[in-house]
Amino acid sequence: MLFNFRGQDIYYEVHGEGTPLLVLNGLMMTTNSWTFMVETLSERYQLILVDMLDQGQSAAATDDYTQADQVELIKAFLDFLTLETVNIMGISYGSEVAIQFTVKYGSYVNKLFLSNACPNTNDWLKDIGRSWIEAMQSPLNFYLSTIPIIYSPAFYNNNQAWFKKRQELLLGVFSQPGYLERMKRLITSAESYDSRSELHKITQPTYILGASHDLITPLDQQRELYEAIENAQFSVIQSCGHASMYEKPQEFLGALIGFLETPAPLSIV
Amino acid sequence: MLFNFRGQDIYYEVHGEGTPLLVLNGLMMTTNSWTFMVETLSERYQLILVDMLDQGQSAAATDDYTQADQVELIKAFLDFLTLETVNIMGISYGSEVAIQFTVKYGSYVNKLFLSNACPNTNDWLKDIGRSWIEAMQSPLNFYLSTIPIIYSPAFYNNNQAWFKKRQELLLGVFSQPGYLERMKRLITSAESYDSRSELHKITQPTYILGASHDLITPLDQQRELYEAIENAQFSVIQSCGHASMYEKPQEFLGALIGFLETPAPLSIV
Amino acid sequence: MLFNFRGQDIYYEVHGEGTPLLVLNGLMMTTNSWTFMVETLSERYQLILVDMLDQGQSAAATDDYTQADQVELIKAFLDFLTLETVNIMGISYGSEVAIQFTVKYGSYVNKLFLSNACPNTNDWLKDIGRSWIEAMQSPLNFYLSTIPIIYSPAFYNNNQAWFKKRQELLLGVFSQPGYLERMKRLITSAESYDSRSELHKITQPTYILGASHDLITPLDQQRELYEAIENAQFSVIQSCGHASMYEKPQEFLGALIGFLETPAPLSIV
Amino acid sequence: MLFNFRGQDIYYEVHGEGTPLLVLNGLMMTTNSWTFMVETLSERYQLILVDMLDQGQSAAATDDYTQADQVELIKAFLDFLTLETVNIMGISYGSEVAIQFTVKYGSYVNKLFLSNACPNTNDWLKDIGRSWIEAMQSPLNFYLSTIPIIYSPAFYNNNQAWFKKRQELLLGVFSQPGYLERMKRLITSAESYDSRSELHKITQPTYILGASHDLITPLDQQRELYEAIENAQFSVIQSCGHASMYEKPQEFLGALIGFLETPAPLSIV
Repeated sequence: MLFNFRGQDIYYEVHGEGTPLLVLNGLMMTTNSWTFMVETLSERYQLILVDMLDQGQSAAATDDYTQADQVELIKAFLDFLTLETVNIMGISYGSEVAIQFTVKYGSYVNKLFLSNACPNTNDWLKDIGRSWIEAMQSPLNFYLSTIPIIYSPAFYNNNQAWFKKRQELLLGVFSQPGYLERMKRLITSAESYDSRSELHKITQPTYILGASHDLITPLDQQRELYEAIENAQFSVIQSCGHASMYEKPQEFLGALIGFLETPAPLSIV
Repeated sequence: MLFNFRGQDIYYEVHGEGTPLLVLNGLMMTTNSWTFMVETLSERYQLILVDMLDQGQSAAATDDYTQADQVELIKAFLDFLTLETVNIMGISYGSEVAIQFTVKYGSYVNKLFLSNACPNTNDWLKDIGRSWIEAMQSPLNFYLSTIPIIYSPAFYNNNQAWFKKRQELLLGVFSQPGYLERMKRLITSAESYDSRSELHKITQPTYILGASHDLITPLDQQRELYEAIENAQFSVIQSCGHASMYEKPQEFLGALIGFLETPAPLSIV
Repeated sequence: MLFNFRGQDIYYEVHGEGTPLLVLNGLMMTTNSWTFMVETLSERYQLILVDMLDQGQSAAATDDYTQADQVELIKAFLDFLTLETVNIMGISYGSEVAIQFTVKYGSYVNKLFLSNACPNTNDWLKDIGRSWIEAMQSPLNFYLSTIPIIYSPAFYNNNQAWFKKRQELLLGVFSQPGYLERMKRLITSAESYDSRSELHKITQPTYILGASHDLITPLDQQRELYEAIENAQFSVIQSCGHASMYEKPQEFLGALIGFLETPAPLSIV
Repeated sequence: MLFNFRGQDIYYEVHGEGTPLLVLNGLMMTTNSWTFMVETLSERYQLILVDMLDQGQSAAATDDYTQADQVELIKAFLDFLTLETVNIMGISYGSEVAIQFTVKYGSYVNKLFLSNACPNTNDWLKDIGRSWIEAMQSPLNFYLSTIPIIYSPAFYNNNQAWFKKRQELLLGVFSQPGYLERMKRLITSAESYDSRSELHKITQPTYILGASHDLITPLDQQRELYEAIENAQFSVIQSCGHASMYEKPQEFLGALIGFLETPAPLSIV
């Protein structure tokens, strides 16, 4: 389905009924990336998937923008759906938008689930992003620059047949007209991200899901989030890289459902 | 309620309806230790709590025994309840019994949740147990030998008021006639535990819940379980010690519920 | 040899010539504990070993005291030896004295090597100490309360024959008249230790040597030292417990010699 | 100075006298990279630096080759110098050559120091290498693909002024005729590396120096080396990335000197 934001079509899907759960994609992900979780999640929740600007089936941006614009998109989208409060799950890029949305529009947010997240785009991560932009000179260059390091070495080594097929598939995707330009704008939109001075404003129950072998948003940074957010929980999936929802889907989904289903706060002290 | 095992009374409680979830206590725990989780869990499951031999309101053992006897107790208990399959959650001592029960009576077990578990009582752990037995010369000695190291230093330091009250309470418990004799037999019953050569027999979906600061069953040992059990998941609660269900009740409960509610297997590869 | 401090005999040894290296023992250690390193170290340095008050061949204390008194003992000792500057190596209790000595008498200290150290005796560590005091009711109780947890489980499990002999030896030591009273005073003397607000005063090149499986002074606390001391280096011996100099003598000695032999500061930035 | 290997000029330097220490460069390093350590090391040892085939001032290869050829180069080089035994220090690519040299020509090797090493080029690392080759389409692309991830995020963020100058310098280097072709052949020469089945042949005292934030050769792989090599030591520099000798030169040099200066074996058990 389509929703109009500042004159542009934004694609979204709503599955099931119940407490609304808004899912915010990682950079290279789309509403399609969640297909394998739709059934399980939509049996319990009103699952809301959305392609942000420049993602999936949503419109390509016509101007430069930052994640602050994606935050406004989400705000407008929830108003369009006439939803007053939702639970939000974000992964990577999506978790950054989720953090900034919660800081600015906290009254909309009930619980916040942040996977493979970081508090800011530091100079190191900025240059990782720039390396991806430079690699756009060819689809293979882009594939090799982005895909191996978002997985743990063990998963990558143990699933080579799957990755061969995935490489073929993704080389096709990266060759589609406009695709890499979209990626470039998305990467650039995250460069100015810095939530550090505002994390104390988040008072919602928050779950930080880390991955032991996350090379892109290392555990140090996830610990920073944990220490700065008042009501945060912090668990780490073992033997898992940055793309945790692909690499350990069961652990990922279990952590999400467990967080949403468990009443908060719970303390014996 | 009471159930008779080899002529002795075994205390148990059943709360709620639904898929049965059998909970096996840690060494010094009882059915009462779970009070704060009963409501949440019994809304979803038929929650079955039980004091094993020498625990809580169950009878004191009249003879020496090992965990193999607790395994038989659980088998007889499930037959008494006419339950053909259950999900099992065990913590520490309880997870050891759960592992051995699953190895021997696997057809009873649907899903297995192991918290702060280890594959065997190695010489080091054996001598930690013996230090606890030696410390039974006085309640204070026993308290100081067992309680601080089962928590993470951070939790212990940050909750001193609670621990002062807990010390007072536990010194009373440890002074009850027969209490320390019961503990001594329980500790001794775990000395011969070694499941390493049989872990491959466990094919049930299994969740290993570790704690980053667990000094009693360190992460190395939980990783051993993860690597030896075929369908295991492995996540680690951060900033948490051995008594994870007390220290991080929300993370603990979330991991358990998430595991039970998520269909298995789920893989994108 | 003997030196007189406040009317009491303090035992010390000087081996070799060269730059003076003062070694400060851990709690249960003595000048004898370093025997296996004396040859290697005294070939290079003027190795100075000393039993602090209540340690080894030094006098038993006649009054209560704190580590601040051990600091004064070290000051008087260096003046007695007419040494104006030394390098200091401390382990555990000895590293605490070394830190406090450097804070107060910094002009005496050239380089500072801190092994298995912590910035303060927090409530958790205080109660571990108290558990050791309570365990003094019998030598076996004391042995089992202190020895296993100062080693990594792997080392303890892999060297059981050695530990059996060591247990026999140490039970004899612990049975010597006055020995446990000395230990009790030493433990108590560390209870008030808190260097956190003064660590910024340490500007000497400082090496923090951690151990991956140190249960007594966990890595978190060693990281605190690293972050608070301006010119600190921080490396961690893998598969090693709190008694690092016994468990990994070669790694320990290599780290010490490498630190002393390498010119500082060295930076390519 | 020059040495002839299979008709090609190999550049090397010898500094100082004493026990020979042969240094094997990482992939993008040269004899020049060690300038800041030459004085300290040559005061103690006969320091031998060498540019392997396609490195620094040595000849460019005219044919394809693997690391096995670099091993033969080292063999011929030591014969040329009439050295019967040396200590070897290798970092990254150099440590791989050092391992293979020791497996094949063990009688030449006294002690082995392996920094940021791995036992084999797994599929993940192979594709990281391929991403670097693809990135050779432009110097900036190559810079951004290789430099940020070989440092820890903290070091990269805290030394941006230095990295700006380094980027300028390296973009010049990468633009030199033939430079990237050399790099391509070097990367390709490491693709077939797999020492796993031969590590048991290494009986020399061996030091594995790891870095806590090494993204290229993660700690898991360094632990594999530690577990497979009989007389290995294993320490980890904290807050440090893959280019450990640049990021923590003092810790690096201290570990090396300490290892070389400490007699082996040393054990108290």
